[in-house]
Amino acid sequence: MERSVTNEWDKIIIGIDPGTNVMGYGLIGVKKKQPHMIAMGVLKLDKFESHYLRLSRIYQRVLSLVEQYLPDEMAIEAPFFGKNVQSMLKLGRAQGVAIAAALAREVPIVEYEPRKIKMAITGSGSASKEQVREMLRRLLNIPKENLLPELDATDALGAALCHFYESQRPTVEKGCKSWKEFIAKNPGKLISGS
Amino acid sequence: MERSVTNEWDKIIIGIDPGTNVMGYGLIGVKKKQPHMIAMGVLKLDKFESHYLRLSRIYQRVLSLVEQYLPDEMAIEAPFFGKNVQSMLKLGRAQGVAIAAALAREVPIVEYEPRKIKMAITGSGSASKEQVREMLRRLLNIPKENLLPELDATDALGAALCHFYESQRPTVEKGCKSWKEFIAKNPGKLISGS
Repeated sequence: MERSVTNEWDKIIIGIDPGTNVMGYGLIGVKKKQPHMIAMGVLKLDKFESHYLRLSRIYQRVLSLVEQYLPDEMAIEAPFFGKNVQSMLKLGRAQGVAIAAALAREVPIVEYEPRKIKMAITGSGSASKEQVREMLRRLLNIPKENLLPELDATDALGAALCHFYESQRPTVEKGCKSWKEFIAKNPGKLISGS
Repeated sequence: MERSVTNEWDKIIIGIDPGTNVMGYGLIGVKKKQPHMIAMGVLKLDKFESHYLRLSRIYQRVLSLVEQYLPDEMAIEAPFFGKNVQSMLKLGRAQGVAIAAALAREVPIVEYEPRKIKMAITGSGSASKEQVREMLRRLLNIPKENLLPELDATDALGAALCHFYESQRPTVEKGCKSWKEFIAKNPGKLISGS
């Protein structure tokens, strides 16, 4: 397995978009505070009848990606709302096995709502997946021929890049969505003009 | 780690009742076609604030139980319906990490609805958890002082015993709930009286 790639980067973030039909993944490497795409892809699962075989493939693939690229952090695209309890249970299981693979190799996990990722990448929380892909192509200088028809790959890459942006921001207390809110919540941390 | 116990049994079934507040587990060993309790217990998770720490503990515990007892099969108590999408997502994740631990050691998984387990143990699908515990105590000759106050342990043990009963039954086509139904669906398999 190719491991030499890990020495090139200051930090590697793996993004995962788990699902029981398709799982997307994308890896970002950071060098001199600039993000670069290392890899992205999809795992197609709809060919498997067995629910467990699908979960097993997700677990194995995430584990092998973690072992191959040795990411420092994992960012998961995680919707908090779904159509119904059945689909949420399935989604939860897909997320669970992906999370287990990260936990098994002690990779810290963060999760982002799709809306948050879209906002970070395109500036609009209601952007289409195609817009997200197009912006990622430009932001990360991805050659057009390297883009995949499956939008799950760029969704996952978007989660990784969103996490990169978040980790670049000055330390902001959790739960604060803006500087304005942060300042309002933390008046003591303001350096008063002198 | 104690592994010698595995030589005593013809088959070992681990039952898991996954949850993000408490996880129950129970192990059944089969000798001369008779089920015996090997172990049961609970993993209390509500003391951990972090959702990931809880999932990590579930994963690690299931993995260590699988490595310690080397079960042949895992039975999961899996409700198909829940109060809301949020709780189902959480439950799905808890199930997912438990499933991942079994998949990681190639232990086949079967799941049973709570109603099905209650029916198998008590004869009533609407039995209380206390009834399930009392019946398990009698069926498996568990000393009263060995019963735990947490009903999640006996729920998990119930899943394992339910699976034992299921695997003891003559091969019945999936989806058949009774012999009557099986015979109706498989007239060719009937040996006609001669």
